[in-house]
Amino acid sequence: MFNKILIANRGEIAVRIIRACRELNIKTVAVFSEADRDALHTEMADEAICIGPAKAADSYLNIQQIISAALVTGAEAIHPGFGFLAENSTFADICAECHITFIGPDSKTIDAMGNKINARRIMQEAGVPVIPGSDGEVTTVEEALAVAESIGYPVMLKAAAGGGGKGIRKIMSSKELPQQFSSAQQEALAAFDNGQMYLEKIIYPAKHIEVQILADGFGHVIHLGERDCSLQRNNQKVLEEAPSVYLDDKLRSEIGQAAVKAAQAVGYQNAGTVEFLMNGDRQFYFMEMNTRIQVEHPVTEMITGIDIVKEQLKIANGEKLSVRQEDVQFSGHAIECRINAENPAFRFAPSPGTIKNLLLPSGGLGLRVDSAMYSGYTIPPYYDSMIAKVIVHAPTRVEALLKMQRALEELITDGVVTNQEFQLDLITHPDILKGEYDTAFLQERFLPEWLQTLDEN
Amino acid sequence: MFNKILIANRGEIAVRIIRACRELNIKTVAVFSEADRDALHTEMADEAICIGPAKAADSYLNIQQIISAALVTGAEAIHPGFGFLAENSTFADICAECHITFIGPDSKTIDAMGNKINARRIMQEAGVPVIPGSDGEVTTVEEALAVAESIGYPVMLKAAAGGGGKGIRKIMSSKELPQQFSSAQQEALAAFDNGQMYLEKIIYPAKHIEVQILADGFGHVIHLGERDCSLQRNNQKVLEEAPSVYLDDKLRSEIGQAAVKAAQAVGYQNAGTVEFLMNGDRQFYFMEMNTRIQVEHPVTEMITGIDIVKEQLKIANGEKLSVRQEDVQFSGHAIECRINAENPAFRFAPSPGTIKNLLLPSGGLGLRVDSAMYSGYTIPPYYDSMIAKVIVHAPTRVEALLKMQRALEELITDGVVTNQEFQLDLITHPDILKGEYDTAFLQERFLPEWLQTLDEN
Repeated sequence: MFNKILIANRGEIAVRIIRACRELNIKTVAVFSEADRDALHTEMADEAICIGPAKAADSYLNIQQIISAALVTGAEAIHPGFGFLAENSTFADICAECHITFIGPDSKTIDAMGNKINARRIMQEAGVPVIPGSDGEVTTVEEALAVAESIGYPVMLKAAAGGGGKGIRKIMSSKELPQQFSSAQQEALAAFDNGQMYLEKIIYPAKHIEVQILADGFGHVIHLGERDCSLQRNNQKVLEEAPSVYLDDKLRSEIGQAAVKAAQAVGYQNAGTVEFLMNGDRQFYFMEMNTRIQVEHPVTEMITGIDIVKEQLKIANGEKLSVRQEDVQFSGHAIECRINAENPAFRFAPSPGTIKNLLLPSGGLGLRVDSAMYSGYTIPPYYDSMIAKVIVHAPTRVEALLKMQRALEELITDGVVTNQEFQLDLITHPDILKGEYDTAFLQERFLPEWLQTLDEN
Repeated sequence: MFNKILIANRGEIAVRIIRACRELNIKTVAVFSEADRDALHTEMADEAICIGPAKAADSYLNIQQIISAALVTGAEAIHPGFGFLAENSTFADICAECHITFIGPDSKTIDAMGNKINARRIMQEAGVPVIPGSDGEVTTVEEALAVAESIGYPVMLKAAAGGGGKGIRKIMSSKELPQQFSSAQQEALAAFDNGQMYLEKIIYPAKHIEVQILADGFGHVIHLGERDCSLQRNNQKVLEEAPSVYLDDKLRSEIGQAAVKAAQAVGYQNAGTVEFLMNGDRQFYFMEMNTRIQVEHPVTEMITGIDIVKEQLKIANGEKLSVRQEDVQFSGHAIECRINAENPAFRFAPSPGTIKNLLLPSGGLGLRVDSAMYSGYTIPPYYDSMIAKVIVHAPTRVEALLKMQRALEELITDGVVTNQEFQLDLITHPDILKGEYDTAFLQERFLPEWLQTLDEN
């Protein structure tokens, strides 16, 4: 196993990775920005190196500084976490050039999945259903109009290199298309230096179902079941659960096999997630593959007992998967609520500040909190507002929801406003209790109701 | 299910019970002494009632005040936790008279197991092996000498009503017996108003193996496997694990069945623990039955996924056991370290005080901390020094030990000295790693070594 690795991230995922390393007797190097001098990941790692000013572009995205930190500390590998450089193929390439193991798939795989037109083509060839849309790139407005006509409006116009909502347009009718096409393409060119565009049918409302996969360097690919991540606001996941009440065993097996096929089609290695959209007829379509660990990985860990971060480290170290598909057993139900330092009553405005008094819910069976907070910690304003993940596991979904309710009622973060009450109201909503929700539910149904109740009180 | 229950306890177990109640939608009433006004259990319960001054005799042992608190708040049941009134049959009787459900076995069962001579006889009749010793009470020195001669010195002279180390003597030879007999008897009379004495062979060193059982009111009795609690100091458990590496599946099944037989022999209802001593030939002998929840119950919860406190509540509410014996599945390995506010370097002197800065280990898979601490909490000097239980669960024992090491390294309780380092040194001792330890190990081997290392540094 590695003697020492560097963690090119911050916050709870950096702490999560440090903890996994400690349990594997791997020394850790943290990197931190000037704003993260007192951060828990900086404190907890065996070594910590400042890589620049607060702004992510100057620190957590600063490839040169991070590579230097790895070389100077003798780190044999780099875990990128999620966000920042996790899906940056250039970074993976530079790691390889410097003889540092990138803990994730190789740069070719990242690129193959990063170009959405490319990914669609690979999946189609592998027999994985993709969202009906253009057959590759649409280069002209005329071509786009013809494709849109054939799949039917509304359609989604997307940049091949897309991400972060850039270069993407919802097109309601042929009238809008010409103007939106050029504006989206220009936006994509500016953001990604790539103006390739494609069209997809809009599947909405839908279920967002994703499958966790693990693949080693010996051709073994397994899936760890699905996560239901349909509860989203502005394409940001809010609450995730596993298994999905929407799937039966047959469909679970089918979508799991489709995910394995998707991973095999690109010769995938390490942990990854294949995201699908599922319509009302329970038809599922490949959406994209995330070539990294995901925020919501704990729900899968809870129902399988498999530590995904440790598997990532073992795979990157050239070991075989420690479980075969037939050994993966699903037990009970797990739910994750993301706790963000934000104010839902004021358009979810970020609310950084100092946590004067912290009480994390704890104790009893099946409760886990992944966080980088401590009493007295000041949340800097420069990064993602997610400050904790509360995860529960219980024999049934109803018991898991009750446990989450208990946990959210216990959590105290005096001094900082969070979405804790919002999450509490969400998990006690009758439709959530019934498991009846889709990608439209949170934004179109729950949020307006919630804001109205807020006004009334 | 009950609408409201009262918790006649304090500290982490009171908090643990409140959490279980919340997850079952049961309202809770906490009772607290004047020293526990700011305690977490006082804060967390739906209602809290002061029952007297700091001294336990005036508050947590004050039956009248506790019953009054239950009646005035309309609590339908009382959970006694462990210690205090948990094995007080008078308290159980008074609860019954006041139509309050005592969450535990009935007073007859408590009494039957509380009188050790009685318990020995019941077990012998049921075919459960007991420690070789006197056939019932020894009433005279002559009788004691004859029994001691037949079983061989050294022997243990014990009070039938024994507890807390009172009325108990280790007898090395016949010379000592007469004088010790009368002194132990007088001590027992003074402490328990009961001078009945009996003799047992000393099984030492031994393995302390105990079996968790659950029994409902419909005649169903199941066991949840064993816990190895051989690591003790002055008969106080320090670290517990499940399963025991000392047992194979055959022996596990035998000792489990013996525990079920023991519970059936007294018509046991609710959760209980049957404690056995096991000698070098893996012969096991009934030692005693604890008619209450135990400190170390979490290790069993972790490997079975069964919430024992919730089962207690359901059984007391007249429900059937939610699992059958054949449904109980054991998975992985769990370890618990008790964190005490004490100074191991100064004869384990209690070290109450204020926790200025608290960081409980958290995050990742299979880590649980049951505690009643928070940043700024002042540990009062009046009660037990145990302030937290760190519990880990992993696929294998080695992984569990590494996870415990990580957890103990993370724990911060600035301002209060604990046995954290002592535990850390214990779990990294080569003999513990190998699983080679017995009831003599901690006190006779580890502690002298540890104190010597301390002197050298």
